[in-house]
Amino acid sequence: MTAVHVVGASGYAAAELIRLLAVHPDVTIATVESSSSAGARMCDLFPSLPAIEIVCSPTGAVRERVRPGDVVFLAGNHEVAREHAPALLAAGARVIDLSDAYRLVDKAEGAVYGLPERYRDAIAKSSFVANPGCYVTASLLAVIPLGSLGDRIATVIIDAKSGVTGAGRNPKVQTLFAEVAEDVFPYGLEGHRHQPEIVQEARAAGIDAPVIFSPHVVPLRRGILADVYLVPRAPIARADVEALYLRFYANNPFVTVFTDRRVPHLPAVEKTNNAQLKVAQRDGVIHILSALDNLGKGAAGQAVQNMNIMLGLPEERGLDARTAVG
Amino acid sequence: MTAVHVVGASGYAAAELIRLLAVHPDVTIATVESSSSAGARMCDLFPSLPAIEIVCSPTGAVRERVRPGDVVFLAGNHEVAREHAPALLAAGARVIDLSDAYRLVDKAEGAVYGLPERYRDAIAKSSFVANPGCYVTASLLAVIPLGSLGDRIATVIIDAKSGVTGAGRNPKVQTLFAEVAEDVFPYGLEGHRHQPEIVQEARAAGIDAPVIFSPHVVPLRRGILADVYLVPRAPIARADVEALYLRFYANNPFVTVFTDRRVPHLPAVEKTNNAQLKVAQRDGVIHILSALDNLGKGAAGQAVQNMNIMLGLPEERGLDARTAVG
Amino acid sequence: MTAVHVVGASGYAAAELIRLLAVHPDVTIATVESSSSAGARMCDLFPSLPAIEIVCSPTGAVRERVRPGDVVFLAGNHEVAREHAPALLAAGARVIDLSDAYRLVDKAEGAVYGLPERYRDAIAKSSFVANPGCYVTASLLAVIPLGSLGDRIATVIIDAKSGVTGAGRNPKVQTLFAEVAEDVFPYGLEGHRHQPEIVQEARAAGIDAPVIFSPHVVPLRRGILADVYLVPRAPIARADVEALYLRFYANNPFVTVFTDRRVPHLPAVEKTNNAQLKVAQRDGVIHILSALDNLGKGAAGQAVQNMNIMLGLPEERGLDARTAVG
Amino acid sequence: MTAVHVVGASGYAAAELIRLLAVHPDVTIATVESSSSAGARMCDLFPSLPAIEIVCSPTGAVRERVRPGDVVFLAGNHEVAREHAPALLAAGARVIDLSDAYRLVDKAEGAVYGLPERYRDAIAKSSFVANPGCYVTASLLAVIPLGSLGDRIATVIIDAKSGVTGAGRNPKVQTLFAEVAEDVFPYGLEGHRHQPEIVQEARAAGIDAPVIFSPHVVPLRRGILADVYLVPRAPIARADVEALYLRFYANNPFVTVFTDRRVPHLPAVEKTNNAQLKVAQRDGVIHILSALDNLGKGAAGQAVQNMNIMLGLPEERGLDARTAVG
Repeated sequence: MTAVHVVGASGYAAAELIRLLAVHPDVTIATVESSSSAGARMCDLFPSLPAIEIVCSPTGAVRERVRPGDVVFLAGNHEVAREHAPALLAAGARVIDLSDAYRLVDKAEGAVYGLPERYRDAIAKSSFVANPGCYVTASLLAVIPLGSLGDRIATVIIDAKSGVTGAGRNPKVQTLFAEVAEDVFPYGLEGHRHQPEIVQEARAAGIDAPVIFSPHVVPLRRGILADVYLVPRAPIARADVEALYLRFYANNPFVTVFTDRRVPHLPAVEKTNNAQLKVAQRDGVIHILSALDNLGKGAAGQAVQNMNIMLGLPEERGLDARTAVG
Repeated sequence: MTAVHVVGASGYAAAELIRLLAVHPDVTIATVESSSSAGARMCDLFPSLPAIEIVCSPTGAVRERVRPGDVVFLAGNHEVAREHAPALLAAGARVIDLSDAYRLVDKAEGAVYGLPERYRDAIAKSSFVANPGCYVTASLLAVIPLGSLGDRIATVIIDAKSGVTGAGRNPKVQTLFAEVAEDVFPYGLEGHRHQPEIVQEARAAGIDAPVIFSPHVVPLRRGILADVYLVPRAPIARADVEALYLRFYANNPFVTVFTDRRVPHLPAVEKTNNAQLKVAQRDGVIHILSALDNLGKGAAGQAVQNMNIMLGLPEERGLDARTAVG
Repeated sequence: MTAVHVVGASGYAAAELIRLLAVHPDVTIATVESSSSAGARMCDLFPSLPAIEIVCSPTGAVRERVRPGDVVFLAGNHEVAREHAPALLAAGARVIDLSDAYRLVDKAEGAVYGLPERYRDAIAKSSFVANPGCYVTASLLAVIPLGSLGDRIATVIIDAKSGVTGAGRNPKVQTLFAEVAEDVFPYGLEGHRHQPEIVQEARAAGIDAPVIFSPHVVPLRRGILADVYLVPRAPIARADVEALYLRFYANNPFVTVFTDRRVPHLPAVEKTNNAQLKVAQRDGVIHILSALDNLGKGAAGQAVQNMNIMLGLPEERGLDARTAVG
Repeated sequence: MTAVHVVGASGYAAAELIRLLAVHPDVTIATVESSSSAGARMCDLFPSLPAIEIVCSPTGAVRERVRPGDVVFLAGNHEVAREHAPALLAAGARVIDLSDAYRLVDKAEGAVYGLPERYRDAIAKSSFVANPGCYVTASLLAVIPLGSLGDRIATVIIDAKSGVTGAGRNPKVQTLFAEVAEDVFPYGLEGHRHQPEIVQEARAAGIDAPVIFSPHVVPLRRGILADVYLVPRAPIARADVEALYLRFYANNPFVTVFTDRRVPHLPAVEKTNNAQLKVAQRDGVIHILSALDNLGKGAAGQAVQNMNIMLGLPEERGLDARTAVG
């Protein structure tokens, strides 16, 4: 059993992470550290986790207890990550950061970008992983396989729809039920915080064309649907594009590419680490749909997947795809 | 045209009030005062009010501008009400307070309890009205006509379901979309703030039996359904109880008592000042359903209804029941 | 007072139309004809219309009663429209068809395309109007002003998000609450029924580039947000595009183009005939947002607007923009 | 491995049952029989079950394949149950019926009432179980422990709030998203189909007082909250009632009685076989809250629990309470 520690316990991704770790057969939760909720039980903080009676420890607890080979998840914001990561790594821990502190190459400081479908081997050898977030993962799973099309791509437009947990649990007027219900809220109209990260990985995959990212909040709890529109410079056959995805994800247990009449559905990926993709085409434009759970493959599920890879465990351990629920 | 002023502009009831006043044919909005939003336009504070470009004035503006005969709505909390009401009344204004500051008899200081279906005549003669809130209005419309049953009542149980705007626009974890969706949240299990007010008016109507009030938040924006269960001491015929309601509400344009197969529906009262009632019975227990819009008849609509009565206007002015929407 | 008749009463657009007509000061509802609900009261068919006690007449009633100069709304499907329109026109009635029977030019048989912001003058002279639907109106309000850019446009992509009433009131598994909640449902991946209509009007406006239409159902009752992405052949300044919209909609009371920090919101247009637009830009791609109520400006509201124009009434009569609600 | 068969695959409870059986370590799904969907894959019928590729067999398949000792779940309606149960029992199968065909004592024909917390021993010895449904289970878990209070009870009122999956997947206007959203829909005002079953079990537990059952549909997918109000003949201490529940559920892994400040929450029981209870009191009335997932402990989860008991397996097998999700 590997001891795991979680820094940060107030957000939805942290709660989902602790839910997954609590039933993972190869790890034991040693510490949940929370600056704002020290002394509180997780089951009191999150009514949805009635069986998790872990008591939050105060700031500093993880750094004190961590031992070489332990895994530490940084589930707070980027400032928390920058504050804790160096010392934890120095102490010999494996660190998985769920914030965006180390995701851009020029700020990575040795962290591997934690998208297993792209960087599995590097993750396996690393002790420091920058775990990509929900919008980015939903977008990149659809964008990266297009890299082999290279300069046949004129423009990529990503129109993403996210459930409200993606906006965090810190109370704001914009995420109140009475504001979100019966609305679809576009934002980031002058550039979203995560656009550079999407562009970075698109470039790394070989796409030089403009990549536009357009996020929306929709009235649901969990899930992201990203509609990715590829405007080509010259005609591309849909079947050829679909074949790129089938090849790219051939040995990736968490990504399904639909080739029959089925389309991605958020309830199909809810509370799983799965992603569903589909390739369509109309009037020459390639349209790729990408669906995942923003707290699952878009955050905590992917973090556990990365941990499994880092520990040399089967990638699906504790994330069994069959448990998809409805 | 009567000049009206609103103190407090940050809550849902204030926004609904301003929406109603903006189209009322006999009044003109002279001032909207807001301590927290001075200088901001209503349309910026509330995306749902795109046509209301009124700019909020700072604290003190109403007191400075008010003239005898004007109407002032106090749409902030009870502390705001206590702070402003005396001086405004002294200045000759008519004051309608939407908070609960003056609703209990021992704190009323001359305010008339603003439930028109019960106290219409007193309201017409008063310049100071304590406007009852959503839970209380939904409950009392169902409870008060039972007063004539007197000691034939053993117990009254009110199980109320409220939309989330009833909990205000001040951001809290409990009213975030991701917490409210897919839940029904019971609260006030050790006594709710408004139980004494319900009991006060039940007693005044002639009911000495225990009155239990049990509120819940349900995942919708607007609307309250109160299920009122009357446990009688001895059998009472359903038709006799129904007749009480028909008689009580005979000349009340905003209250409908269904006697056919229809049942109350929240979309039927949404964005109106209407209430719908129905009387059922099973195994001797009388079951009264009461539905209204918590921001309409449960707050702002009722405040305008009270204003109309105080000004000697037709009670439905600016609240036309036909505008019920769907 | 002009007598108006409605053929078809079982859908959401019909209900909204009857709600609007019931309070319109210049018309009186003479007949509501319904093949499936003859003899039923509207208030029994639609709990959300408690004050509409009109009884539905059987098939044939309108044709029997209609008199020259009356207005008939065809609120059923395209087959109903094809069946009724010729005889009603022959009887001297003005006909407004809410179906898509006569919207394509090669099937129009004399009908004017009922988008007032584009064809106001022709509508005023016509007695037969094909009223465009929700997706089409939301899309075209954003697309048509781009026509003056001509061949500077490489591609137009429309990613539209619609509330569930857009899918009708005929019960289907896909529109059950338990299927729609917590999902975003993409469809029309091989071409949507209304794409040809959007393309027809885009071409008529001067746009020869491919126009891709991608609809989604989102978990809300009413409202459409269309995100329109214009990929240009060469750089275009955002301000120039915004200026096109300001000019195009200068004298159109129901269309607002936001130029400050505000963005379109569905609750802002809910139960109104209003539309809200905004022009953004990122990495050279022009991004136009268009929001309206699918039952308002996307169906019944627009039908009333067309009626007003046909009757020579002020365009806003019975559709007062100030009544926007929240 | 025990072979299990499911008759009926079109409803939400059937889908949930198949999801649970598919990951149960001691059983293998031999047959899913569906009269309406023969030949279809479950993953095509239910987008939320993307990993369940089982193909539905036509009517008669189970009867043909079943062998002594197999378990058959009847997941259709009561007519399906009456049609199949006798022959399956005669063939030596264990039968668990999710319909209400055999739940009333005078129609039970040997079936044991499948509420394990009440009839565990009889279930263990039986090969025929009538599995109670959602409203009934939520109500009875709160009502049955009160039996020891006997004639100290004057009246019991159950006000229940159910998610929409409780109304089935057969499309009806009343369960469309656009009808359910923003409403709370009371029904059964003249007596609900399941009231006799609740009364039967209340009587069997020793309660002779009237038991009123009042169901509502609320706008959420899954979950039931039952508010049970006990009006006593003479004062009863809350702590004494709470102690009844603690004792009654002491060795029942799926029922939690909160004694601290926590209250039941539907997300806490979502997709689990758990139930949460709490005992409150106001003005002499005892108020018991009972929350469960209508498809879990209220249908499919309970059916699996019964199967475990019948097969002599640990009661939690395949239903691990730790997997509660959020």
